[in-house]
Amino acid sequence: MNSLCDLDKKELTTRLRRIEGQVRGLQRMVEEDKYCVDILHQINAVQGGLKKVGLKILDKHVHGCVQRAVKDEEGDDVINELMEVLAKFTD
Amino acid sequence: MNSLCDLDKKELTTRLRRIEGQVRGLQRMVEEDKYCVDILHQINAVQGGLKKVGLKILDKHVHGCVQRAVKDEEGDDVINELMEVLAKFTD
Amino acid sequence: MNSLCDLDKKELTTRLRRIEGQVRGLQRMVEEDKYCVDILHQINAVQGGLKKVGLKILDKHVHGCVQRAVKDEEGDDVINELMEVLAKFTD
Amino acid sequence: MNSLCDLDKKELTTRLRRIEGQVRGLQRMVEEDKYCVDILHQINAVQGGLKKVGLKILDKHVHGCVQRAVKDEEGDDVINELMEVLAKFTD
Repeated sequence: MNSLCDLDKKELTTRLRRIEGQVRGLQRMVEEDKYCVDILHQINAVQGGLKKVGLKILDKHVHGCVQRAVKDEEGDDVINELMEVLAKFTD
Repeated sequence: MNSLCDLDKKELTTRLRRIEGQVRGLQRMVEEDKYCVDILHQINAVQGGLKKVGLKILDKHVHGCVQRAVKDEEGDDVINELMEVLAKFTD
Repeated sequence: MNSLCDLDKKELTTRLRRIEGQVRGLQRMVEEDKYCVDILHQINAVQGGLKKVGLKILDKHVHGCVQRAVKDEEGDDVINELMEVLAKFTD
Repeated sequence: MNSLCDLDKKELTTRLRRIEGQVRGLQRMVEEDKYCVDILHQINAVQGGLKKVGLKILDKHVHGCVQRAVKDEEGDDVINELMEVLAKFTD
């Protein structure tokens, strides 16, 4: 199934590239024996970046796909699916 | 400051490379208009992977650096620093 | 504004009473100098219980209020409000 | 095992009583059909309060019990136990 969620691809791609760069930075930090607390702070930064990406996609999904499904009387299925991913997202 | 934490570099590097690949996969998913719920599940997977890496580093840090600092009578500073990063890690 | 979300009051009340009892238990543990790690495990249990309550309310809210609002062409406001509470819930 | 962690009992008890009151408030909100989003915000507040209590106990535990155990050459066991509770705390 392809998304009809009208994601802001450019913004998401920019954010994900930065996250990719941060993950490569983490590999370098490990390789170069950087201080573990600094590595942990960097991991927190990546987690924060990913959370922001997740919330942006979630926002588009609920405003887009979920609203459309509700109007097409297919809301319950899409909402069950949403709740499932949310339960994990809140871990 | 360089780490004396005796990280398992090989294991961490393997994990971080997999995470990097997953983040690149996320970019592709966005590019190819994949279904947003699938993207969100993939983000959850990356978060889980990063959390595992974080816990592994934390474990080595507390067993290693923190224990050593305590024995050198410098425990309080290292523990304050640890608590600061933990407060963010638990967000 | 009163809820039209059709919460399962009986189940939620039972869960919240158990959580209240657990919080009182935490006070006792502190009072009686119980081992801090045991207190921390109990805090984790309460957090897990609250999260479950939150997810149950969220589920009813999205299936109920949000769907109704979407059908009444007032979806966007209700969804913005939802996203705001979700951003905090995922902390 | 009794705690030697020197918790600030008065402060923790005050915080936990406030949390207990908030959980009772949640029960009232459910009973009185309050708007679910308001209930969810209140749940977030309780989670935040519990997290703060957890971090305070953790801080005392690491500064107290863990340091003492390390000096007594029993650090590894206490740290393994700490890591176990931390893994859940970060969920």
